[in-house]
Amino acid sequence: MTATAPSPSASPDSSATGALVRSDLEIARAATLRPIVEIAAAAGIPEDALELYGRYKAKIDLSRLGAEDRHGQVVLVTAISPTPAGEGKSTLTVGLADALARAGKRTMIAIREPSLGPILGMKGGATGGGLSQVLPMEDINLHFTGDFHAITAANNALCALIDNHIFQGNALDIDPRRVTFKRVMDMNDRALRSIVIGLGGPAQGVPREAGFDITVASEVMAVFCLASSAADLKERLGRITFGYTYGRRPLTVADLGAAGVMAMLLKDAIKPNLVQTIAGTPALVHGGPFANIAHGCNSALATTTARRLADVVVTEAGFGADLGAEKFMDIKARYADVAPSAVVVVATVRALKMHGGVPKDALTEPNVEALERGFVNLARHVENVRKFGLEPVVAVNRFGTDAPEELDAVVRLCRGAGVRVAVADVWGRGGGGDGGDDLAREVLAVLEAPGTLRHLYPLEMGVEEKIGTVVREVYRGAGVEFSDQARRTLQQIHENGWDGLPVCMAKTQYSFSDDPSLLGAPEGFTVHVRELWPRTGAGFIVAVTGSLMTMPGLPKQPAALRMDLDDEGQVTGLF
Amino acid sequence: MTATAPSPSASPDSSATGALVRSDLEIARAATLRPIVEIAAAAGIPEDALELYGRYKAKIDLSRLGAEDRHGQVVLVTAISPTPAGEGKSTLTVGLADALARAGKRTMIAIREPSLGPILGMKGGATGGGLSQVLPMEDINLHFTGDFHAITAANNALCALIDNHIFQGNALDIDPRRVTFKRVMDMNDRALRSIVIGLGGPAQGVPREAGFDITVASEVMAVFCLASSAADLKERLGRITFGYTYGRRPLTVADLGAAGVMAMLLKDAIKPNLVQTIAGTPALVHGGPFANIAHGCNSALATTTARRLADVVVTEAGFGADLGAEKFMDIKARYADVAPSAVVVVATVRALKMHGGVPKDALTEPNVEALERGFVNLARHVENVRKFGLEPVVAVNRFGTDAPEELDAVVRLCRGAGVRVAVADVWGRGGGGDGGDDLAREVLAVLEAPGTLRHLYPLEMGVEEKIGTVVREVYRGAGVEFSDQARRTLQQIHENGWDGLPVCMAKTQYSFSDDPSLLGAPEGFTVHVRELWPRTGAGFIVAVTGSLMTMPGLPKQPAALRMDLDDEGQVTGLF
Repeated sequence: MTATAPSPSASPDSSATGALVRSDLEIARAATLRPIVEIAAAAGIPEDALELYGRYKAKIDLSRLGAEDRHGQVVLVTAISPTPAGEGKSTLTVGLADALARAGKRTMIAIREPSLGPILGMKGGATGGGLSQVLPMEDINLHFTGDFHAITAANNALCALIDNHIFQGNALDIDPRRVTFKRVMDMNDRALRSIVIGLGGPAQGVPREAGFDITVASEVMAVFCLASSAADLKERLGRITFGYTYGRRPLTVADLGAAGVMAMLLKDAIKPNLVQTIAGTPALVHGGPFANIAHGCNSALATTTARRLADVVVTEAGFGADLGAEKFMDIKARYADVAPSAVVVVATVRALKMHGGVPKDALTEPNVEALERGFVNLARHVENVRKFGLEPVVAVNRFGTDAPEELDAVVRLCRGAGVRVAVADVWGRGGGGDGGDDLAREVLAVLEAPGTLRHLYPLEMGVEEKIGTVVREVYRGAGVEFSDQARRTLQQIHENGWDGLPVCMAKTQYSFSDDPSLLGAPEGFTVHVRELWPRTGAGFIVAVTGSLMTMPGLPKQPAALRMDLDDEGQVTGLF
Repeated sequence: MTATAPSPSASPDSSATGALVRSDLEIARAATLRPIVEIAAAAGIPEDALELYGRYKAKIDLSRLGAEDRHGQVVLVTAISPTPAGEGKSTLTVGLADALARAGKRTMIAIREPSLGPILGMKGGATGGGLSQVLPMEDINLHFTGDFHAITAANNALCALIDNHIFQGNALDIDPRRVTFKRVMDMNDRALRSIVIGLGGPAQGVPREAGFDITVASEVMAVFCLASSAADLKERLGRITFGYTYGRRPLTVADLGAAGVMAMLLKDAIKPNLVQTIAGTPALVHGGPFANIAHGCNSALATTTARRLADVVVTEAGFGADLGAEKFMDIKARYADVAPSAVVVVATVRALKMHGGVPKDALTEPNVEALERGFVNLARHVENVRKFGLEPVVAVNRFGTDAPEELDAVVRLCRGAGVRVAVADVWGRGGGGDGGDDLAREVLAVLEAPGTLRHLYPLEMGVEEKIGTVVREVYRGAGVEFSDQARRTLQQIHENGWDGLPVCMAKTQYSFSDDPSLLGAPEGFTVHVRELWPRTGAGFIVAVTGSLMTMPGLPKQPAALRMDLDDEGQVTGLF
């Protein structure tokens, strides 16, 4: 590892400290990577189980792993309700794993693959930051090993087969107005949200309304991330409901006979991808479903593979703990053997101040009072984690602009609330340095006496009641209001025998409520369920609250227009 | 090589000989592959220039190749006018290279990557057949190393940026009715041919008519395949005309500032892919543009890289010699240093009989008379090759159903016409066996005294005259008729200063004329140019004759529905 730590004033908020701070891309480039075969060997992966993608990336052929299973303990990293200030959850995940490895634990990371569309728009990558990154970051953030392209192809092959079936006589009696399955593209392309296809006359198809989602919103992605094996993947693909007959009977991929070709197109993608952190910790970066209409965490296969190989597995859930952690417990941990032994709740001084009412442009000024007001958000997430039978650790992800008295205040408030807490500087000093030692110590203490996961509701409970339970117990709302359309779908779910599925809440990540402006810890609100989307392949019922975007758009100044390839073939302008 | 030759009665026409014949997939599976690092070492590629994709595929980092340049001679494999009977041009290309290697020549193959869409439809793969295949065929025919996915992403990133630009204020004054650049997908998806996008109200975009092409029809693909380096790739991408202003001024990718991000998305794809034949001959399989609206051959970088490394490079052009070979000479060989030293014209007894009037279902019956009638097609292609200053060799690709007197007749007719000829059984016996020895001998004789390429027309000639020259000299038509629209585009081409580009004829491959039913060697016909498409990035003007399909559809029984992944993770039903 040749990367040198940035100057003491360095901060993830590079706008605050200016040009002295190296970009994540520069830090990543300065790191010396070890050949992935060495990383694999150290992680106990036999060389003949590796399918190399260049020198620093490999897929793992699970059929060639040894029989040994270390049953590693899972540490789930989640966060307070996110704010535009940024919590650095991925950075913390990477840094914590590096710190655990530094503490002598056989550790492995399991995180999501980034989606290309948002990277071309405005979002940072999903590979961490500063000294806590997974590498090679350019590759992981661009095409990586092609998994999302394969998922896109499998999704769109199904769509072509559906429209071809309608065109060629429609033996299945598909109602073209009720095809619910959409085409996807890994691109932020607003113009494809709502389209009309099949125009041009009888030889060109059957006209119908349609649209594209971004690839990470595909049910194929959710299926991919919940499958426990290639065989289970095919089973689940076959169970996807793609639409309805004119008589409203649900139609599945198996009815169309398309599960086989879809599984074939995913045969390599389903193998987890091995990379490394700057500090050399092995990381499985695999799958990446949306965190709103899906469960928002890396593939089950990556997590269970990491558990076979390591003693501690650090993984991440999307958005705040009300969404990401709840779905991890009630969806992913029901379908895969991944129950956490400890939960880390990431908070930042900046975000707590926003929850306490400070606008984004005033965040650099110390403000302990606002921070104390905003602490209610963190406190509620901590309580919620305990409802699942698990003991949380609060990780304060340090930014360069944090005042010492602010950091002291968070620690004091946490201790007052009886929750373990540690300040971590994984961006500036790295978990491979000493930036995560305190946090690692707290986490290891919990792992010595781990909790046991309790699901929030039993599957036998009705869908309406499940939603009500999440709203009351986790969000602390007064109740749920279902639109007429949602009520009709509830009836349909019952008729089709889908009541036994868990629910997947699609709600704003910014608030416990369905109103993104209600920061802190609101109470007494009503959650409005606008639509219900049965995802019978993935195995959950999506409850859509508020407005929902499944195909993002590009901003006025897209990040893509700053990106380039220089004369030496090096990427520039990517972060 | 553990593959055993099929029984003497074996034939590519498996319907004729039944279950005794192994499928291409079975033959491919039975072959023992050598690690690609060994293949590379034998081909003079240093190990640190290899980027492995598993054990049997690698990309070549051209910046790490040695300085040595063997200036290999190029053998171009082309064919008579294709028929539904199939000519087996890819199989012949692979088999000839194996035979040349067997004859002691340092040989390398450069061929196209297959497109996924047609594979899911009904077409066979493009990896050869029988004992003359490139491997691993499942991988090459599915996602391979992700090149087409990267091209799709680069193409669609541009489209998202175009529509976003219109949406965000349209500073470039793009006329939404005159955006000529389309989105693409590597899928046969008829319903996407003609669509309306941007529906849903002011927040969802600006409605306009649009459509998807298949990825191989993208100008990005053509640019990719004509670029001489990564820098040239970016230059050419910048020169793509994506549409016009309200005032009819052409707008380029450089105007939008998108060439950098597109080049970045192609940074790995542009590196040629190394694989091997069943006999162990190194093969660069890279790029694959449409043969109608583009030039239809593998990337220029693959061909020039093969020339650096080998003494003989066997490469292939799309469709028959009137299209593929003409474009190779007049487009590809102008932009890249790939002038052929010899040309192989592939013919089959079956196809010659079809050109002589025999319907497809009567092809198994010997019919020397029909064959003699159909020989006119082959004879004209032979004459045409000589117009380019090159000496052809006719390769009769033997099928199991060919009668000895038919094979004798073709040889006799060729000798009577003064052209070198050899019967090859590269499917059944392989070029690595003795199936291509005679052909290799004839080709090597030509390479001893190679011709010198003459282009058919100078670039200074006007576009109308260039088209007229191709029609008269190659097709032997009486003249060209331009539609009113084509005439208007001719004027526009002149005004925009694009006259100096070569022409790329989009014509039916089944006939020398623009009428697919005129088999044999028609004369006196008129070619109708319906539209002209300036492809300023690729660097040619497409002349569209007849109807043209740039997004195929699926058939009533798509091949996809026979494909599957079995419990051992093996692909089934792929060919």
